[in-house]
Amino acid sequence: MSEFMSTQIQLASRPSGWPAHENFRTATVAYGDLRPGQVRVRNAFVSVDPYMRGRMNDVRSYVAPFALGETISGGAIGHVVESAADEVPVGAIVLHQHGWSDTVQDDASTFRVVPDVPGVPLSLRLHVLGMTGLTAYVGLTAIAGMREGDTVFISGAAGAVGTAAGQIAKLLGAERVIGSAGSPEKVALLTEKYGYDAAFNYKDGDVRAQLAEAAPDGIDVFFDNVGGDHLEAAIDAFNDGGRAALCGAIASYNTTEKTPGPDNMGNIITRGLTLQGFTLGSYLHLAPEFQEQMTAWFAAGKIAYDETVVDGIENTVDAFLDMMRGANTGKMLVRV
Amino acid sequence: MSEFMSTQIQLASRPSGWPAHENFRTATVAYGDLRPGQVRVRNAFVSVDPYMRGRMNDVRSYVAPFALGETISGGAIGHVVESAADEVPVGAIVLHQHGWSDTVQDDASTFRVVPDVPGVPLSLRLHVLGMTGLTAYVGLTAIAGMREGDTVFISGAAGAVGTAAGQIAKLLGAERVIGSAGSPEKVALLTEKYGYDAAFNYKDGDVRAQLAEAAPDGIDVFFDNVGGDHLEAAIDAFNDGGRAALCGAIASYNTTEKTPGPDNMGNIITRGLTLQGFTLGSYLHLAPEFQEQMTAWFAAGKIAYDETVVDGIENTVDAFLDMMRGANTGKMLVRV
Repeated sequence: MSEFMSTQIQLASRPSGWPAHENFRTATVAYGDLRPGQVRVRNAFVSVDPYMRGRMNDVRSYVAPFALGETISGGAIGHVVESAADEVPVGAIVLHQHGWSDTVQDDASTFRVVPDVPGVPLSLRLHVLGMTGLTAYVGLTAIAGMREGDTVFISGAAGAVGTAAGQIAKLLGAERVIGSAGSPEKVALLTEKYGYDAAFNYKDGDVRAQLAEAAPDGIDVFFDNVGGDHLEAAIDAFNDGGRAALCGAIASYNTTEKTPGPDNMGNIITRGLTLQGFTLGSYLHLAPEFQEQMTAWFAAGKIAYDETVVDGIENTVDAFLDMMRGANTGKMLVRV
Repeated sequence: MSEFMSTQIQLASRPSGWPAHENFRTATVAYGDLRPGQVRVRNAFVSVDPYMRGRMNDVRSYVAPFALGETISGGAIGHVVESAADEVPVGAIVLHQHGWSDTVQDDASTFRVVPDVPGVPLSLRLHVLGMTGLTAYVGLTAIAGMREGDTVFISGAAGAVGTAAGQIAKLLGAERVIGSAGSPEKVALLTEKYGYDAAFNYKDGDVRAQLAEAAPDGIDVFFDNVGGDHLEAAIDAFNDGGRAALCGAIASYNTTEKTPGPDNMGNIITRGLTLQGFTLGSYLHLAPEFQEQMTAWFAAGKIAYDETVVDGIENTVDAFLDMMRGANTGKMLVRV
């Protein structure tokens, strides 16, 4: 019998407002020998995502809250290092939702083997070729019903979902894509690398005024990662029949007080607007369609991406907090 | 040559906040002889509707603003008293959008002949069998996608649209229908006459608390005529995948300051909610389907209604203002 040690990050207490280190603890978990059907996986990359903040609260949602005292679950990718399951052999690359740990051991059915494609870095399965890309695709297509010729506004455009969404919008025929981000460097990247037609720094001034200037003919679709003043600005800028896919609201994730909603809700009626929120769990049936499209675009060299990588599982909480503060460009990842 | 005098109500100035008599003027319009293709119509009933308040403002909307100095347009029904158009003979009953006048004269194509059905009062074509009923039907079906077994909440439930919507919801298979209104008498009417399963007086206290009590298992569909605290309460009460048809927001039609939106917009994402606004103009293709259903329900004695009738075209502005204040039960009409 061999014991195997795993370092894992657990939720120690529920944050009120901004999370702090004291809300987490680093635990050493001892695994025994593999039981039949189990595999042991050494993670290569672990994902930190904005939606995880919501799961730290004990509120009703499509996605259940994290349990106190348990390891933070979420996307990760790694290699099988020991196997007692024929279908998932040693050396296989596997995606899973076991979350913030350097190593994990569980039934083979909780891991999904992904092919090792030359020229496709592993980490991309955690963002542009994975859930993040799917989130962008679902929001634009199934939720907002984007059509060729639409003008599309994307908030938090330099983040993992935003960089994917801008490119997908253009590839699906958007006439004009506008993005907001939080630094001049990010704004430059949006137009220079990601094909945005216009971009602005929301810290430079009133979002309504900046969006109105960037979209003189109004917007048809809004993909929202931010909420707050961004949603209000979009409701002002919408053309008749405009559609918003509400994906995230990072502006209010760490507030402790209730924040008032947009002051222009009347436009929803007079302009026949639709605001639809979504979480990915209800749209996983679109994953095959997305994979087919995205794989083709990627192979054709049409998909750019950025990664902000933090090394060491013990720095996962810092990576998460930095991501919440907008320190990342593109996808924030922990390399184990 | 004969001259014919018509009394008409025109928009004299745009109201800021609550409209007042000074914003309107009573004009006497002189019509000459009929030209070929024209008809002259003596109105029987003229409609006053909440959406008209929005048209008094000079703001962008699906429905164009009323022009200053022109007669307020809107639904009316009357009899042809003189005709120079073979297809619309004297005595025909016609529906039209010429609005607030005792008599009107125009091309026959601007009037729609409706059959004189025994047992169907003319006035019903202006509400439960007309645009008002269609509004309720479109909101529940095409906008909110109501399904059998849904729990439905309707704000402003004792008004013209609300009384129709509650009955249509039940006839389409809603499991439970909940309504809000502004007096104990209206609340009693909702459950005793209109088949609502529960109702509350929004003036009795916090709308959130009253809705939560009336809908212990949450709501699936919200048909909103009020906005403000009603919309906020619905967003709190929604089950996952809930859908709101935003039809009116009478709570804020007469405010001069911007009013903050719901403080719980985050629920839209976490519960996968959809808020969709609409105005009827985009959904007139559903009129035949509605007419077929509604006519059958009405003939079977399944549709109740109320009318609050004001006599005299010169009292139209009072009728409109009273309706905005909630003085009506069911449909507010002016009998000419």
